[in-house]
Amino acid sequence: MCFIFLHNNINKICAKLYVKKKLTSRSKDFSKWYNELVILADLAENSAVRGCMVIKPYGYAIWEKIQSELDKMFKATGHQNAYFPLFVPKSLFEAEEKNAEGFAKECAVVTHYRLKTDPDNESKLVVDPDAKLEEELVVRPTSEAIIWNTYKNWIQSYRDLPILINQWANVVRWEMRPRLFLRTAEFLWQEGHTAHASKAEALEETILINGLYADFLENFMAIPVVQGLKSESERFAGAEETYCIEALMQDGKALQAGTSHFLGQNFAKAFDVKFATKSGGLEYVWASSWGVSTRLMGALIMTHSDDNGLVLPPNLAPIQVVIIPIYKGLEQLEAINEVVNEIKAQLEADGISVKYDNRDNFKPGHKFNDYESKGVPLRIAIGPRDLEKNVVELARRDTLEKKFVPLDGLSDLIQATLDEIQTNLFNNALKFREKHITKVDSFDEFQSVLLEKGGFISAHWDGTPETEEAIKKQTKATIRCIPLNDIPSKGRCVYSGKPSFQRVLFAKSY
Amino acid sequence: MCFIFLHNNINKICAKLYVKKKLTSRSKDFSKWYNELVILADLAENSAVRGCMVIKPYGYAIWEKIQSELDKMFKATGHQNAYFPLFVPKSLFEAEEKNAEGFAKECAVVTHYRLKTDPDNESKLVVDPDAKLEEELVVRPTSEAIIWNTYKNWIQSYRDLPILINQWANVVRWEMRPRLFLRTAEFLWQEGHTAHASKAEALEETILINGLYADFLENFMAIPVVQGLKSESERFAGAEETYCIEALMQDGKALQAGTSHFLGQNFAKAFDVKFATKSGGLEYVWASSWGVSTRLMGALIMTHSDDNGLVLPPNLAPIQVVIIPIYKGLEQLEAINEVVNEIKAQLEADGISVKYDNRDNFKPGHKFNDYESKGVPLRIAIGPRDLEKNVVELARRDTLEKKFVPLDGLSDLIQATLDEIQTNLFNNALKFREKHITKVDSFDEFQSVLLEKGGFISAHWDGTPETEEAIKKQTKATIRCIPLNDIPSKGRCVYSGKPSFQRVLFAKSY
Repeated sequence: MCFIFLHNNINKICAKLYVKKKLTSRSKDFSKWYNELVILADLAENSAVRGCMVIKPYGYAIWEKIQSELDKMFKATGHQNAYFPLFVPKSLFEAEEKNAEGFAKECAVVTHYRLKTDPDNESKLVVDPDAKLEEELVVRPTSEAIIWNTYKNWIQSYRDLPILINQWANVVRWEMRPRLFLRTAEFLWQEGHTAHASKAEALEETILINGLYADFLENFMAIPVVQGLKSESERFAGAEETYCIEALMQDGKALQAGTSHFLGQNFAKAFDVKFATKSGGLEYVWASSWGVSTRLMGALIMTHSDDNGLVLPPNLAPIQVVIIPIYKGLEQLEAINEVVNEIKAQLEADGISVKYDNRDNFKPGHKFNDYESKGVPLRIAIGPRDLEKNVVELARRDTLEKKFVPLDGLSDLIQATLDEIQTNLFNNALKFREKHITKVDSFDEFQSVLLEKGGFISAHWDGTPETEEAIKKQTKATIRCIPLNDIPSKGRCVYSGKPSFQRVLFAKSY
Repeated sequence: MCFIFLHNNINKICAKLYVKKKLTSRSKDFSKWYNELVILADLAENSAVRGCMVIKPYGYAIWEKIQSELDKMFKATGHQNAYFPLFVPKSLFEAEEKNAEGFAKECAVVTHYRLKTDPDNESKLVVDPDAKLEEELVVRPTSEAIIWNTYKNWIQSYRDLPILINQWANVVRWEMRPRLFLRTAEFLWQEGHTAHASKAEALEETILINGLYADFLENFMAIPVVQGLKSESERFAGAEETYCIEALMQDGKALQAGTSHFLGQNFAKAFDVKFATKSGGLEYVWASSWGVSTRLMGALIMTHSDDNGLVLPPNLAPIQVVIIPIYKGLEQLEAINEVVNEIKAQLEADGISVKYDNRDNFKPGHKFNDYESKGVPLRIAIGPRDLEKNVVELARRDTLEKKFVPLDGLSDLIQATLDEIQTNLFNNALKFREKHITKVDSFDEFQSVLLEKGGFISAHWDGTPETEEAIKKQTKATIRCIPLNDIPSKGRCVYSGKPSFQRVLFAKSY
């Protein structure tokens, strides 16, 4: 069935459909908006396993774009991929004490390797008590333990160093309050694990990767980040230093988007990994580890999206341009098909990903809504009158602007517009972030800014975990990072009044 | 330190190094040869977790080539990737009875979600008995159960069909006798899970994918396969029909390289997944599932490799051409570097992957050996005398042939030679396979061929599981498949003498 659809009615009808609110607005309930958006845009959903998500094809296609670009960047900086076991024997897991302590409370543990028919009910299964493992296996929450136990056999001499390995994998950290993409019991990530002959080299690697992450988020995902160091209490369990990138979401809460850890010799000592130095000595190996996860999907959503649904930077869009025909009857459709096939071929030849949606069982208005929800950066609508005039209607997802543009030179215009959208999204997010970094010099101000405005609060801190903890208890704000590029400045701790040498960034966070 | 290395000595010295046997020969102990080769070529190794392997960077780079090509083929046939949970609640796992029964004996089971400090020893951890799961979670041995439980919510009407989804994931099947790549407790694979409105369409999909697998193995991995159907006893647990591709290894044993299952309505019934038909009825959904795994790495090794190490088809080679300089002193090296940089740039521009190994701390002979072990298809050696003559020495890994070739037109020659190697490897494997399909018409002959020659035995079978079982018991050979393209022929079962309508392929297998 084909719907009669007059061209000059499109805007009205679509306008009507746009007004039809599907999402709770961000200003009303940001958290609800997020949860609804993930479902509406068909990105992911909860599964039958508490805390574990199903990443749906459209969401996974975005994750594949993230993976593919990061993978290129890792390889361009000399890293190789490998794969290590899902399971970590308990005795290895507990070898690096701080790491073990940090993750012990959220470990899924395999205790048996067989099920058997339930003796009381033939159609049911029970765990076979005869198949109890001698040693329990932890489902990896992170892989330092299993990897350093492996590196032990790979490293004898300085000639075996550095080792620069990355792994794309799933990990499990039990979650009491799971949220799609942001906190799930199982998530997908990459984890880099490098081994070096010197402290300087391991530190250089740690910082290199933090910079790579920042570059990726800003230039590929259009998400501005602050690069910084974590305070001791926020460090990765087992690290000497944790570098991080912190992004700011539209609700004024911060999101840790990636971390890069300088592990010192902690894991080398725990697993006894020594190397013969050039000068004939024997030393423990230096290490780094670093990762980003499907959490980036959450950062993506909460940075750019609006009350109409997902907004995607063109770099991450599985479909960059959608073309929708507006027609009445088969004859009109065929005339449009012919022109669109040419447009599509031209755009694809220029490396633009295009979908032509000429399904006959959905109204254009329905399609407009659908692709808007899914954040497709550009929409082309084309009807019989447009054909006559050699124009199409081009709509931008980021600004919601629409205009008629000539067919002639369309591909160039679209490429330029996609670039503009990418830049525009970054600039908007940057403006928002800049507006939401507030310098405060008293604790009263700290509390009122946090309450009324949110965002990052730049304040002096005396450097003690006690003050950090007290502030957290009273305000729920934590130190997100000690920014790398700030100029040291003397002052007094906003809480204790003690001397301080640098401002740090506080915020409530995901 | 730079070793003095006279050009006219290269062949002698290398010849000497080649003679230095590193691997047990295939003819002496095929199984030992395989195990040694996996280590020598730096593909994988055993881990601290029984049955779980570490896939090393070189092995993983080959797996990435397999993934990347298959992924393209899946997407080109309309499939999308997604991701489903690692864990399957026991109640879902047991829903499809045959499937559950088939996998129950090899399931890793998560029973707890927390560790705590051992009250008897502060530096140790124990499973926290207070963190016992209400319902145990099975680590997925395959994902039909969790996926069909999800599809239930995705499918209401024929408009929601077909669903064509693939997942790249790790799965766990407990193994009592693990072997690297061939049988590991955890392995990497892809699993397709499709849902259809009709039996015909689901069957068509099942057959399409089996053909896609055959195409991939033959034209990309250079491994000839027989496409066939499994007998009932060799079917996937829960399937109505299992299609497969069977390859023949150099020791005369068969290897099941991929399977594609027609699942009928079994999973739809187990999870109550019905759809409204076009004509207004309500029917159970039809299904297929299909997969290939890191086992393909085993097939690759055992099809092409030789007593010198791995042999890689150029399509799968992370390094297609390695260039090794033969020099004496820095001045000679610099002159060679200059020429090689040009060669490398030209080859890379033509899409050929090249490594220039001018490390100064390894002898050329060592490098020759190393890349030979790793199966790099082409090796270029270049010394000062070659520079004068404008030639290089080109060595083929598959035939071990060496010849001097002019620098002029080198890239074209290399591309052509890579193509030739790809074809040559397939043809050699095909010749071997054809030579090792033996028609037999008596059980005596069956036994003697199996004992003396190995390979596939093409024999009549009466179609009963009893005969199949009896033959297996007496000979260890199983029915690998009922070939798809054979012409039916009347005969008598090689074991029971009962009438038979088609020959099937028997073999010992991995």
